[in-house]
Amino acid sequence: MQSQRVAVIGSGAVGSYYGARLAQAGHDVHFLLRRDYQSVATGGLHCTSPQGDFALTTPAIACTPQEIGPVDWVVCALKSTSINAVPDLVGPCIGPHTRILVLMNGLGLEERFGDWFGRERIFGGMAFTCVNRGEPGHVHHLAYGAVTVGHLLNDPAEVDRALALWAPARVDFSGVLSLRRARWEKLCWNIPFNGFCVAAGGVTTDIVVNDPDLRAGARATMEEVVAAGNADLESRDEPLRLDGPTVIETMFRLTDSMGPYRPSTMIDYVEGNPMEVAAIFTAPLARARELNLHTPRLATLTALLQQYDRNRTAQSG
Amino acid sequence: MQSQRVAVIGSGAVGSYYGARLAQAGHDVHFLLRRDYQSVATGGLHCTSPQGDFALTTPAIACTPQEIGPVDWVVCALKSTSINAVPDLVGPCIGPHTRILVLMNGLGLEERFGDWFGRERIFGGMAFTCVNRGEPGHVHHLAYGAVTVGHLLNDPAEVDRALALWAPARVDFSGVLSLRRARWEKLCWNIPFNGFCVAAGGVTTDIVVNDPDLRAGARATMEEVVAAGNADLESRDEPLRLDGPTVIETMFRLTDSMGPYRPSTMIDYVEGNPMEVAAIFTAPLARARELNLHTPRLATLTALLQQYDRNRTAQSG
Repeated sequence: MQSQRVAVIGSGAVGSYYGARLAQAGHDVHFLLRRDYQSVATGGLHCTSPQGDFALTTPAIACTPQEIGPVDWVVCALKSTSINAVPDLVGPCIGPHTRILVLMNGLGLEERFGDWFGRERIFGGMAFTCVNRGEPGHVHHLAYGAVTVGHLLNDPAEVDRALALWAPARVDFSGVLSLRRARWEKLCWNIPFNGFCVAAGGVTTDIVVNDPDLRAGARATMEEVVAAGNADLESRDEPLRLDGPTVIETMFRLTDSMGPYRPSTMIDYVEGNPMEVAAIFTAPLARARELNLHTPRLATLTALLQQYDRNRTAQSG
Repeated sequence: MQSQRVAVIGSGAVGSYYGARLAQAGHDVHFLLRRDYQSVATGGLHCTSPQGDFALTTPAIACTPQEIGPVDWVVCALKSTSINAVPDLVGPCIGPHTRILVLMNGLGLEERFGDWFGRERIFGGMAFTCVNRGEPGHVHHLAYGAVTVGHLLNDPAEVDRALALWAPARVDFSGVLSLRRARWEKLCWNIPFNGFCVAAGGVTTDIVVNDPDLRAGARATMEEVVAAGNADLESRDEPLRLDGPTVIETMFRLTDSMGPYRPSTMIDYVEGNPMEVAAIFTAPLARARELNLHTPRLATLTALLQQYDRNRTAQSG
C-alpha cells in the first residue's frame, strides 16, 4: 500500500502513540494538537516503549482541522466526553473517500459518526494498551498495545483496508467480524474494572481482583454485561455471540497478570478529569433497559459513577 | 426512682446530648471528657434543640474514669472504632450493681461488653437522632431523638429498670423485647444508607432515595440485611422476626421524609475520621457468612468501605 494521508484527531496518549506508529511506518500523519502544540513544534514527539524508544523530530502538526483538510484516514482518539465536538473537529478532514477509525471507548460512538459522516466509512478500534502522557511532547507506552478493528457495517473488504493501513506499523493489529460484539467484549472489561477501580476510591486493578468480595462484585457485573451484550447482538440479528464463561475467565486471567494497572476512568477520577461515564456505563445500561434486561449491578455502578460526576460539578460549581 | 449516679463514657454528640438530658432530669451525671474538657470546665455544656435550648452550667466532668469511679449506670457512647478501649475506659466505673447501656452502632458490641463485665448488666440502646458537635462545649440536637433499649438477656424486668432511669428525662425512650432484633432493624437502615451515602462519594440520604438506581441498590441491600437478620434470629431461637416488607417500607418512608440527612458514617467519611465499618458492616456480613447466606450486595458494599479505610491509611501513612 502506498503512503496514506492520515489525520490524528485527539492527540492524547492513545492518539499520539498510534499516530506516531503510523508515521514511523511511513504514512503522512498530521496531528491535531492543543496542549502540546508548542512543545511538539519545537522539540518533536517522543515515545518511550518497551519495543524501543523512538521520536518524530518534525511531525506534521496543526492547531485546527482546517489546516489539515481532507485525508485518506482519520484516526479519532478523542475522549468520548468530547463526542459532541466531533462534527467540528473531524468534519474538515472528510473528503469523498475518507475513512474514519474511531479509536475511543464506549458503546454507540460509531453509530454517531455514521449519522454524521455516513456509515460505510466508519470503523471502530479497540485499543488494549497502557499509554500515558508525560511532559508535553512525550508519550510513555508502558505495556500491551494490540488493536482490534471492526467496520460499522461489518464489511470484510473494508476491514482488510484498515489492516492494510496498519500492516507496515509496529502495532499488533487485527480485524474482527463483528464490531458490535467487539465493543461489548471490551465493555466486559471496562465496566467492572474501570467501574470498581473508581468506586473503591481510585484504586488499581490488583486491589479489585485480590479482594474476594470486590472480585465477586466485578464478576457479577461482568456477567450482566455479557447478558446485555448477547441480548443486544441477538436483537440486531448479529450471528455471533459472546461466550460468557470464556470471556469472563479470560478477562480475569488477563487482569490477574496485570499487576497494579490504572484503568483510564480511574486515572480521570484521581486526576479530576471528566470521566467517560456516558459512553462506557450509561449507554450500555440504557441499551440493556431497552431490551428489558435486569442488570442491577450495572445500574448501581453506573448510578455511583454518575453521582461522582455530579459531586464534582457541585464542588467546582 | 431516686437520683442515679451515671457515667457518660464517650462524650461526643450522642453521649453529651443524652447525658445532658439525664442531668437535666435530676440524675448525678459525670461526663468523661477529652477534647472539650477545658471548655466545659470553664463554660459549661450547651445544647441547642428544637425542644428548647438548655445548658448545664457546672456539669460534673472528669479526665479519667478513675476520677468517676463506680456508678449505678454507665452510658457508653464511644464510637465502635474504639471498642477495644472499653475495658480501660468503662472498667473503673463498674461496681457490683452497675448497669451498662451501650449507646453505640453495630452488631455484637453488647456481647463484647458481656464478656468483659457480665451479660446480666448489659443493655443496648438504639438512638434515632441527629445530633452534631459544635464548638467545644456545644451540642446541636437537630431532629428526632427517640431511643429504644433492650437487655442483652432480654429480661423484661431489666428493661423496666432502664425505662425507669429515663422516665424523668425529656427523651422518647421505649423498650424492646429483643435486643438482637432491634440491632438488626437498625442495621436495615444503617447498612444501605450509611453505606450508599459513603459509596456515592459522601452524599446526603436524599441523593440516594431520589436516584432510582441508588434507591434500588439500597433496597436490594436492605432485603439482604432483613434476610441475614432473620436467619440470625432463627439460629438463636429468638421468637421474633423482622417483617421484611414492613421494615423496608417504613425505612424508605422515613428516609423520604428526612431531606438532606447526613448519616454518621458519611460525616466520618467527609471529615476524614475513622468510619464504623467493622461494627456496622463487617460484623453483620461475617454473621451472614457463618449462616451460609448469599448476601452479595452487603459483601460488595462492605468491601468498598473497607477499601476506603485502606486508601486513607495509605494516604496518611
